[in-house]
Amino acid sequence: MITLYTWSTPNGRKVSVALEEMELAYEVKTINIGKGEQFDPAFLKVAPNNRIPAIVDHDAVGGPLSLFESGAILTYLAEKTGKFLPASGHARYRVLEWLNWQMGGVGPMFGQANHFVNYAPERVPYGITRYVNETKRLLGVLDRRLAEVDCLAGDYSIADMMTYPWVASSLGGIADELGYADADLPNVKRWMAVLAVRPGVQRGMVVPII
Amino acid sequence: MITLYTWSTPNGRKVSVALEEMELAYEVKTINIGKGEQFDPAFLKVAPNNRIPAIVDHDAVGGPLSLFESGAILTYLAEKTGKFLPASGHARYRVLEWLNWQMGGVGPMFGQANHFVNYAPERVPYGITRYVNETKRLLGVLDRRLAEVDCLAGDYSIADMMTYPWVASSLGGIADELGYADADLPNVKRWMAVLAVRPGVQRGMVVPII
Repeated sequence: MITLYTWSTPNGRKVSVALEEMELAYEVKTINIGKGEQFDPAFLKVAPNNRIPAIVDHDAVGGPLSLFESGAILTYLAEKTGKFLPASGHARYRVLEWLNWQMGGVGPMFGQANHFVNYAPERVPYGITRYVNETKRLLGVLDRRLAEVDCLAGDYSIADMMTYPWVASSLGGIADELGYADADLPNVKRWMAVLAVRPGVQRGMVVPII
Repeated sequence: MITLYTWSTPNGRKVSVALEEMELAYEVKTINIGKGEQFDPAFLKVAPNNRIPAIVDHDAVGGPLSLFESGAILTYLAEKTGKFLPASGHARYRVLEWLNWQMGGVGPMFGQANHFVNYAPERVPYGITRYVNETKRLLGVLDRRLAEVDCLAGDYSIADMMTYPWVASSLGGIADELGYADADLPNVKRWMAVLAVRPGVQRGMVVPII
C-alpha cells in the first residue's frame, strides 16, 4: 500500500494519475494547503520542503520509503513497476529529458503565471507579462515536439503524466491570457484530447475528492 | 567523447562539474546566450527548449545521444559511469528526490530572484520580495537537511552537483538581498566550504573559459 499526501493541484495530480495508470493500490491523505496543513510537523518529516505531493510506500524494498518531489516520485513508481520509463537506452533518457523539462520549466513558470494572474494581492503588469510570455513560449516548445512524436518521449510515459496536469490547469486559470482557444497549437490540442480520455488520467485528475 | 554545449551559468556548470567529477572526456562548445546563439537552428536540434546545457555523447550505447536539461544529463552520466547515484534502493531515491528539489525549486526560484534584483529593466518591488523570500526559504530547507547529513542525499552525489552552482551563484548575485554573510545557515556554509575545495568542482566551475 502507498500513502499519497496530496491536494487538488497540478503537482498532486501528476502522482495520482501515475498511480492510476500503473494500477497501484494507494490511500489518499489530503493536505489542505489553504489551511496551511503543509506546515504540520508530522508532514514535514515526509516532505521537508513543505510541499505536496509526497508518498510513503509501506512495501518498498528495504522498508517503508517516504519520498517528495513529483519528478522523483514518478521515476520511483516507474522503476518499481517497470512501466512508462524504459530501463535503458535512448528511449529512457528521452523520457527523463522531458520529465526534467517539466520540472524545471513548465511547473515553475506556469505556476508563476497563475500566481500573478490570479493570486497576487496587487496587480503587477511586469510579472503578468513575463510569465504569460514564458508560458506561451513553453507551449510552443511542446507543440513543436508533439509535431514530431505522438507523446513527449515518443511512447506515452511519465513525462506526459508530469506535463498534462499543468497544461490542463493553465486552461482553467490563465486560458484567456494565453489566448488558448485561438492559439495555433494543433499538436498540443491533439495530445491533450488523447490524454483526457485515458481512464487512468480521468481517475487521477479528480484526486483528492474534497 | 562527449560534446558539452554550455555557458557561464549555474545550469551549465552543473554539467561541467559532473563531467569533471566522473573523469569523463569532453569538449566544450560555448553558446553565448548574450548574443542569442541558443536560437541557432543547429543548436535547436540538440536542445529543443533553446537552453543550455546540452550534451551529445558520441559513444552512447545505441549510437550518438543528444540530451538537454541538466537533471536528465546528470542522471544519464551517473548511470553511464555508475558513480554518484546508487543503482537501487532508498539511497537512489534520496538522490533523485533532492535532484528534483533543485530542478523544480532552487534553480527556477533563485533564477527569478536574480532576474528581479539584477536584470529586470524596471524595479518591481513585489517580484524582488517574492523571490528573495522564496530563496531564503529554500536555503532554510537546505540548512535543515544538511544538519542531518553531510551531503544532500547522505553521500556526495549528483544532487549536490546540481545545487552547489546555484548557491554559489546566488552568493555572487544576490548575497546582499539574502543577508547571507550574517545568515544563520551554518550547515549550508559548512557544505559549501567542503564542496568548494573538491578538485572536480573547482575545475568544473570555471568552464567555459571565455
